[in-house]
Amino acid sequence: MESTSTLVRVRYAETDQMGVVYHANYIVWMEIGRVEYFRAAGVRYRDLERDEGILLVVVEVHCRYHSAARYDEEVTIRTWVEESNSRMIRFGYEMTDAATGRRLATAETKHIFCGRDYKPKKLPRGLGSLFEMR
Amino acid sequence: MESTSTLVRVRYAETDQMGVVYHANYIVWMEIGRVEYFRAAGVRYRDLERDEGILLVVVEVHCRYHSAARYDEEVTIRTWVEESNSRMIRFGYEMTDAATGRRLATAETKHIFCGRDYKPKKLPRGLGSLFEMR
Amino acid sequence: MESTSTLVRVRYAETDQMGVVYHANYIVWMEIGRVEYFRAAGVRYRDLERDEGILLVVVEVHCRYHSAARYDEEVTIRTWVEESNSRMIRFGYEMTDAATGRRLATAETKHIFCGRDYKPKKLPRGLGSLFEMR
Amino acid sequence: MESTSTLVRVRYAETDQMGVVYHANYIVWMEIGRVEYFRAAGVRYRDLERDEGILLVVVEVHCRYHSAARYDEEVTIRTWVEESNSRMIRFGYEMTDAATGRRLATAETKHIFCGRDYKPKKLPRGLGSLFEMR
Repeated sequence: MESTSTLVRVRYAETDQMGVVYHANYIVWMEIGRVEYFRAAGVRYRDLERDEGILLVVVEVHCRYHSAARYDEEVTIRTWVEESNSRMIRFGYEMTDAATGRRLATAETKHIFCGRDYKPKKLPRGLGSLFEMR
Repeated sequence: MESTSTLVRVRYAETDQMGVVYHANYIVWMEIGRVEYFRAAGVRYRDLERDEGILLVVVEVHCRYHSAARYDEEVTIRTWVEESNSRMIRFGYEMTDAATGRRLATAETKHIFCGRDYKPKKLPRGLGSLFEMR
Repeated sequence: MESTSTLVRVRYAETDQMGVVYHANYIVWMEIGRVEYFRAAGVRYRDLERDEGILLVVVEVHCRYHSAARYDEEVTIRTWVEESNSRMIRFGYEMTDAATGRRLATAETKHIFCGRDYKPKKLPRGLGSLFEMR
Repeated sequence: MESTSTLVRVRYAETDQMGVVYHANYIVWMEIGRVEYFRAAGVRYRDLERDEGILLVVVEVHCRYHSAARYDEEVTIRTWVEESNSRMIRFGYEMTDAATGRRLATAETKHIFCGRDYKPKKLPRGLGSLFEMR
């Protein structure tokens, strides 16, 4: 799977008094991108957590802001896997203004798979292949 | 116990593009008021939830906005119990600008006590007396 | 216009440690409902604010919580106008689990129209008729 | 000025269904750290924005998560300037559990100074010296 694209519309709650989207909200949007990436790969992240007891714990976030998103704009979140194995997964993201293609932010997040006890856990073999992790 | 007062300083993240605090954040501040009310009464809400398995589930919120809070202002959250018994508790709140006393919002929230299964549960007798519920 | 329905999918960020949606997030969802109500009526709220200098200032929120929404569920926000004139508007909301119809919350919000100076302002006649305010 | 330390108490609203603080909230805490760093240096960021028309626009965020913060814990945000000149400033942060010293997250943010038009702007000489930027 190459990458998936998801749309979010900027909420009023997501703006700040500069008149643009508050920067922490892009981190929330990336989570939406990841979940939709999983869904496109046939995995519902909710079930991974609830049924398999596998948590995708964030260990690193890196985001560069290129241009500000504004209220009521539609934002495209493009999400892809940069690197993965049975213990970790690293996602890449590009967020753009859906109407103009203007680049808003680029980012990476790194995650480790953990059990319900928060201890690192290997992803079962069957699951890894589902979303084309090698 | 009459009422307790807690201070919060308005975060940039809490403002919106109108240049004032986004209205949903007052609901978050009330939660801070409640938790500090409990603490002043000798109950750490965290322990109530973790050790006693008692959740304070919100069933109703009513908030009237009188004047807008702005970035970096200090807000006083005054919290009191309006009504309570072993099954429910109703809190009252008044939020004011700490510097000027200007009234920002007045509110009530109603909660029921639930167990970890989200089913209603009576508060153990000992706990009720701790925060003077009658 | 009777009412409009909008879908939101519960974000991980919107859950809390009770394992359900944190109650203040329903207030954010209502804002999404309002904005989509306006859009369906041919008014882009963003333009109302930016081009007409009219702000829809929240003066009251009342929400009753019936059942908890959970992560990754789709929520239907049904929004309608309960009362309106050239100075104020009162919206009603019903939020339900889109999959099962289970009722999550019912709510009202009351707003006054203000200018950029936050002083109350009458809505221009043409605008009122656009979204069938009487 | 070496570094400043600020305390925040984890809000219920900041937790997620994993039972820990949702990762985007650390980004909000860093903003609190920055603002208190400014305040300790004699600059109220609010005034910088409002009176001087200088916005501190975030262009990069990098955060590593070491250990999860939990509800009602007090978190110490240590903030310092890693690099600065009249056009940009880079902050470093270390967030720890105030009770135990356990390290929660380490991070950097990079900002450029902009005018109200969002165009880059040099910081007036007098202001730079105020918070010991060289």
